[in-house]
Amino acid sequence: MLVIDKLREYVKENRDDIVSDLRSLIKHPSVSAQGIGIDECAGVLNGIMRDAGLESRIIRPKEGNPIVYGEVNVGSDKKTLLFYGHYDVQPAEPLDAWRYNPFSGIVTDDKVHGRGAADSKGNVIAVVKAIKAMFDLNGTLPLNVKVLIEGEEEISSVHLPAFVKEHADMLKADACVCFDGSLNPSGTPNIYAGLKGLLYVEFRTRTASVDMHSSLAPIAPNAAWTLIKALNSVKKDGRIMVDGWYDDVRVPSKDDLVLLDRLEYDLESIKKDYGVREFIGKVKGKAALKKLLFEPTCNIAGIYSGYVSSGSKTVLPSEAMAKVDFRLVYDQRPDELFKRLQDHLSKMGFIDVELTMLGSLEPSKTDPNSRIVRAVASAASSVYNREPSIFPNSWASGPDYVFTKLLKMNSVWTGCSPAHANIHAPNEFTSIRNVMDGICYISSIMQEFSK
Amino acid sequence: MLVIDKLREYVKENRDDIVSDLRSLIKHPSVSAQGIGIDECAGVLNGIMRDAGLESRIIRPKEGNPIVYGEVNVGSDKKTLLFYGHYDVQPAEPLDAWRYNPFSGIVTDDKVHGRGAADSKGNVIAVVKAIKAMFDLNGTLPLNVKVLIEGEEEISSVHLPAFVKEHADMLKADACVCFDGSLNPSGTPNIYAGLKGLLYVEFRTRTASVDMHSSLAPIAPNAAWTLIKALNSVKKDGRIMVDGWYDDVRVPSKDDLVLLDRLEYDLESIKKDYGVREFIGKVKGKAALKKLLFEPTCNIAGIYSGYVSSGSKTVLPSEAMAKVDFRLVYDQRPDELFKRLQDHLSKMGFIDVELTMLGSLEPSKTDPNSRIVRAVASAASSVYNREPSIFPNSWASGPDYVFTKLLKMNSVWTGCSPAHANIHAPNEFTSIRNVMDGICYISSIMQEFSK
Repeated sequence: MLVIDKLREYVKENRDDIVSDLRSLIKHPSVSAQGIGIDECAGVLNGIMRDAGLESRIIRPKEGNPIVYGEVNVGSDKKTLLFYGHYDVQPAEPLDAWRYNPFSGIVTDDKVHGRGAADSKGNVIAVVKAIKAMFDLNGTLPLNVKVLIEGEEEISSVHLPAFVKEHADMLKADACVCFDGSLNPSGTPNIYAGLKGLLYVEFRTRTASVDMHSSLAPIAPNAAWTLIKALNSVKKDGRIMVDGWYDDVRVPSKDDLVLLDRLEYDLESIKKDYGVREFIGKVKGKAALKKLLFEPTCNIAGIYSGYVSSGSKTVLPSEAMAKVDFRLVYDQRPDELFKRLQDHLSKMGFIDVELTMLGSLEPSKTDPNSRIVRAVASAASSVYNREPSIFPNSWASGPDYVFTKLLKMNSVWTGCSPAHANIHAPNEFTSIRNVMDGICYISSIMQEFSK
Repeated sequence: MLVIDKLREYVKENRDDIVSDLRSLIKHPSVSAQGIGIDECAGVLNGIMRDAGLESRIIRPKEGNPIVYGEVNVGSDKKTLLFYGHYDVQPAEPLDAWRYNPFSGIVTDDKVHGRGAADSKGNVIAVVKAIKAMFDLNGTLPLNVKVLIEGEEEISSVHLPAFVKEHADMLKADACVCFDGSLNPSGTPNIYAGLKGLLYVEFRTRTASVDMHSSLAPIAPNAAWTLIKALNSVKKDGRIMVDGWYDDVRVPSKDDLVLLDRLEYDLESIKKDYGVREFIGKVKGKAALKKLLFEPTCNIAGIYSGYVSSGSKTVLPSEAMAKVDFRLVYDQRPDELFKRLQDHLSKMGFIDVELTMLGSLEPSKTDPNSRIVRAVASAASSVYNREPSIFPNSWASGPDYVFTKLLKMNSVWTGCSPAHANIHAPNEFTSIRNVMDGICYISSIMQEFSK
């Protein structure tokens, strides 16, 4: 049996190897939204997994980015744990807002900088290096392990449901740990017994075949105005105005509110880290946390129309585009809501606004009293010397439902990246210390669950 | 006395010289909004003006782009006519929408293509070459001529008012002809006894110091939403909702409506040329023309926030920007309205939205029965063999008020560029035949006004 201290010593001794492999992953961009560097990064990861003792291979599905999949089989009498992670990253734009090159993996003191450092290459390294650590220290693992690292998490895991359905036998396990999260500001892991869903929609409108001189504005339709009026009709005073949008909302349950009551989570630090003066509606403390966990959202991720360079240009734009992500709570269904959104716009008269679904994820829930949640919580307290925060669900989204709904197994979402690491934003980084703790965390999860 | 037929023969014989000088001007970008090529273009124009027999020079004001100014003095007993034009052009973006390089001046049959071909380098060439034509054919001009070609018309003639005030004596004249317009779809010139004003405003908002992960949307303010809500508060059902916006509106007067009644102007061709299905509110005919002439506007010329590249990125933008141009009608005042707009946003609670005035022009009016309007109308009918359209005011804006309000002279706005020549849009062009007719038109205006 491994003891935590032996593990801590091991990661210290192997720091250079861990950092070097993490930097290799960061230096290979793997931007799924832009189709950049995917194959190369999958290849590098496969090498790192094989080096850790996994029987690993790259699986190329009919559609979508390659999946890196590895197994360790120690015996059919042992339990089996499935680990999920992703090697793809968000686009790095705006590039000029980065202090360091986002794909250089530059190290300063305890930090490794770059796109994907925290979300989620540091987490992937923790999983893989924990397996290596156990082999190096013990020569074997306490249970069978399956490691599924996909390349489309940042584009809503478009092809993961099909892959999981097709490989249901291969992926069979007693439970799943999705290792793709961050510590909370107090330094302990967050454990999520569920995730929000997502519906990502592109709005496009074209009101003429070519841009016009803006003096025609009294009579000629303006695509930017059309889009703004359409978006405005979708949300009012924070509430989504689409008919039936809240019909299937099942959270918070009584159990959810019990967990919420126990949670200590410092949201105030978000204000400092991101330079936000006040939260919406000046909400604070538990009330803010409740909103964060249980509120469906309609977020404009991007909007563009017309002339946006320096100076003034009097143009009447013929085209406009917006990207909008909707976070969904249990048990909203993205396909149905997309149809409702289309109906809403046509009912409101926005017949020129076309919608494209760029991605969707169903929300997911796991019983917080299940064996896997208890094992992960126990591992967290032994590694981080403090009770972890167990959330009824995360405010973020991920493809957890493919494990809970499609493979019918319990699943938790956790991770070891630092809090407020600028994920999805410029100047993302991770902490080497946090990655090393993550290796201990994963090792302990395996031991706890094997009991 | 010149006769029209002699002039027509002259421009035909000198076609190559005219096209060559027009292409020279187009090949020198002169984008005032971006500060590109201004000095070089002014230099080229000055050469063309000197070659035409004008005593021309480049005047560099303390602030702003150089002005090219030329005179022909034939005697203090003669009348003096001031011509106004501009050598600067709109930005060419989006560049990938152009069939030909916007700064190549490529000629295909009767067309010269490029940014500024119609707005307004073709018009400038017509003025200058008309003077050369009269010198070549008659050895003199029938009146004194002053030619003022500025380089900031496309950025709301920011420094022209100061220049005109400082050089009021130099610019003294009996009337002004602003030659910066287009023919109407029937092929006859439009003559405007007034212009709309303009207020160009940049809206900027910053709700955090850095972009965030969009999962924080339930509590973190989104700059794009803030901007959209702010813009939405400014216009509703086509009406500008800012308190007092319409207080100083003086048009249409009874005289204006008489002119409107006489006007024949085919707005339907706009739909075809720009691929517009319906005008706003399905307005048609005289009703559409009335809206076009007399309605103040609030046009979104550009908007930008967040992630707008391919695919999906779940970001919560910290910054958003919009460029908005307001067309003003007689006798709205841009400075006052800008203050009203600021007050409106702060009253509506949009304290994070900052406004910058990027340009302003006052609206302008001239008596349609004045000598200059009659002279220009008479010249138009003799050259184009049809009654011209006399408008109470244009739907476009320009610095006409510096002549009518600051120099207290009557002024008309007209020009010779083709109708629907994609001005301010990709694939701008002019017609060589139209430029040659313009030379005859300017020559006739000088003769008519000298009588």
